Amino acid sequence: MHAEFCFYVRQIAFPEQKAGCRSNKFDRMSTSIYSADRLKAFVKQVFMKMGSSEEKAETASDVLIGADLRGVDSHGVARLIGYVRLWEADRVNIAPEIKVVHETPSTATVDGDSGLGLVVAPQAMQLAIEKAKEVGTGWVAVKNSNHYGIAGHHAMMALEHDMIGFSMTNASPLVAPTFANERLLGTNPIAFAAPTLNEPPLVADFATTTAANGKLEILQRKGLDTPTGWVQDKNGKGTVDSHALKQGGALLPLGGDRERSSHKGYCLGSMVDILSAVLSGANYGPWVPPFVSFLPVSDNPVGEGIGHFFGAMRVDAFRPAEEFKRHMDQWICRFREAKPVDGQERVIIPGDPERETEAIRRREGIPLLAPVVRDLEEVAQKFDLAFCEQAH
Amino acid sequence: MHAEFCFYVRQIAFPEQKAGCRSNKFDRMSTSIYSADRLKAFVKQVFMKMGSSEEKAETASDVLIGADLRGVDSHGVARLIGYVRLWEADRVNIAPEIKVVHETPSTATVDGDSGLGLVVAPQAMQLAIEKAKEVGTGWVAVKNSNHYGIAGHHAMMALEHDMIGFSMTNASPLVAPTFANERLLGTNPIAFAAPTLNEPPLVADFATTTAANGKLEILQRKGLDTPTGWVQDKNGKGTVDSHALKQGGALLPLGGDRERSSHKGYCLGSMVDILSAVLSGANYGPWVPPFVSFLPVSDNPVGEGIGHFFGAMRVDAFRPAEEFKRHMDQWICRFREAKPVDGQERVIIPGDPERETEAIRRREGIPLLAPVVRDLEEVAQKFDLAFCEQAH
Repeated sequence: MHAEFCFYVRQIAFPEQKAGCRSNKFDRMSTSIYSADRLKAFVKQVFMKMGSSEEKAETASDVLIGADLRGVDSHGVARLIGYVRLWEADRVNIAPEIKVVHETPSTATVDGDSGLGLVVAPQAMQLAIEKAKEVGTGWVAVKNSNHYGIAGHHAMMALEHDMIGFSMTNASPLVAPTFANERLLGTNPIAFAAPTLNEPPLVADFATTTAANGKLEILQRKGLDTPTGWVQDKNGKGTVDSHALKQGGALLPLGGDRERSSHKGYCLGSMVDILSAVLSGANYGPWVPPFVSFLPVSDNPVGEGIGHFFGAMRVDAFRPAEEFKRHMDQWICRFREAKPVDGQERVIIPGDPERETEAIRRREGIPLLAPVVRDLEEVAQKFDLAFCEQAH
Repeated sequence: MHAEFCFYVRQIAFPEQKAGCRSNKFDRMSTSIYSADRLKAFVKQVFMKMGSSEEKAETASDVLIGADLRGVDSHGVARLIGYVRLWEADRVNIAPEIKVVHETPSTATVDGDSGLGLVVAPQAMQLAIEKAKEVGTGWVAVKNSNHYGIAGHHAMMALEHDMIGFSMTNASPLVAPTFANERLLGTNPIAFAAPTLNEPPLVADFATTTAANGKLEILQRKGLDTPTGWVQDKNGKGTVDSHALKQGGALLPLGGDRERSSHKGYCLGSMVDILSAVLSGANYGPWVPPFVSFLPVSDNPVGEGIGHFFGAMRVDAFRPAEEFKRHMDQWICRFREAKPVDGQERVIIPGDPERETEAIRRREGIPLLAPVVRDLEEVAQKFDLAFCEQAH
């Protein structure tokens, strides 16, 4: 859902890994390497065993493996067991009839029929693209959906059509607005993708909080504190205790505190919530249903499921496409060539780290932590499947 | 351009002011109070003396006084002398022919003909609204413009049409991307306005930096340091020296530093730059021309003038308008009633402080600092006008 564009590469790089090496230490846990193709084939089988059509299973596994390839491990196959449990709790419809319930030439509202967001989201984004072909731009709000994987995947669907793509979603409430001692917003990510000529496309994809939950968990495992500005405790006070969220605290909006303009992160998270849910008819704010199956959904929902929002804009609806893309290249080159601060090699362009990770992982395989492998083995057993072998 | 939605009210409140009191101490400088109507009439006369049509002068003075009314003093009449000087330097065309140079049913690109952004922006936003009436949404990119005042003013034009409004602009480069020791982006604000039923509308309007230049200037006058995360010095190191920007440093993207996700503020500023300028054909990044007349424009521009981007979405293009607005009310009430942290009275809804300030200032007048009054008197003299009397 939210790639942290700058910093993931360092976390997932394998400094001690050599060709042929199958396993290494990461975060004090062993990892094993799997080929993306084999993992994808396994995930697809699982969705089909749950009752998905082959076509929908193909789409969903594409989104999930796409996250692992791009280094957003928190939103890849590590989530598969979560989707399975939601399905077991009858909170996901594995064979949804996804319907347009309202539309104009440039807009649509889609009812996801409680489907996997992994399936609903690409279909809604495709609709936005089709509308953009007709009238220049397309905007699709989605209700009655579930967790949709990484935001960037859907925004990037626009690129091959020479369109700018937007993707956002609301999510389970873990975030306290500025001055609030309540969790009212999700990490509500925004993704934005712009096409280019010879440079790789610019892809921004980020949670509207200072840090996402996955990063907290890494620090918890290491027994480390967080930087300031990430979390507040159950009394609403800023803290560096990486366990604070689990103990009744909250994540903080981007900015972290009032002096550093957390109200702006709160505005961004609110905008995502309103576009994704108030516009579509999904649940918003504290009513958004939790991703985990062991937490109950609200007795008084204000809408249906969770909500997403997608946009596609043909760049040639504004100026000739080649002109736009040539200037995007120039923008990127100018920023890439900027003078870095001491101790940094370069200024990073949004999307660089994920693309670089993808090149490595397509070649060398996807590293999975031991607990993730155990979860996948449990899923395999549940459906009487063989979990894939490690990469050769 | 960027209201700092939470905090302005406190800065401009007049705790010692009583009815009939004309002047008080603010920020160690005396202020005088002027009626909004009289100030507006004066500003309008100035634009007409510069050669503006009455209609355009009316629009421009509306935007400028709107900023003062809403408490965004940095973007109100305090800027008038800046616009005059740009016009004297032949960098503003006071009688522009604003033209649509490219369009589709849901989009347009507008050439502002070097006009005042205060005039070009409302016209472009109006075009977005007209397109939304036809096909559900309208999106307008603008090139060849100048500083457009407060972002929120233009976004709010959508509200009376039951539309969601968006407004953004790029600006002179003062901001260093994450890891960069160069100023490559402006404070590039985003505004978002959503209509409501009985509650006041939600209006978010914020720079994509931790803090805007106006706040730095307040601290400089007081001889105070900044909080961390606002600025870096000329060597690219984070600092709390409020003079750092003037001494070759840079403002920092929202987030402040890498540990607190400044790359997300950098992504947001980049998105605004790309939508406002790469899409429209304006200058972007370090090529954006400065607002101040004493700094030269680039010898090698990559586009024309500065760029803006506007959007309007009919809410009934997604669901019945009344339904949307009723749920907006519920969203707002739930957030407003949230439990505040200790020491805070309430959780603030984006747009509350500016609206509250406007109610006070419409009733009691607009306070202007002595240096601003001196500038306005200078402008009055230049055009052989009488500057308005203070409010009775």
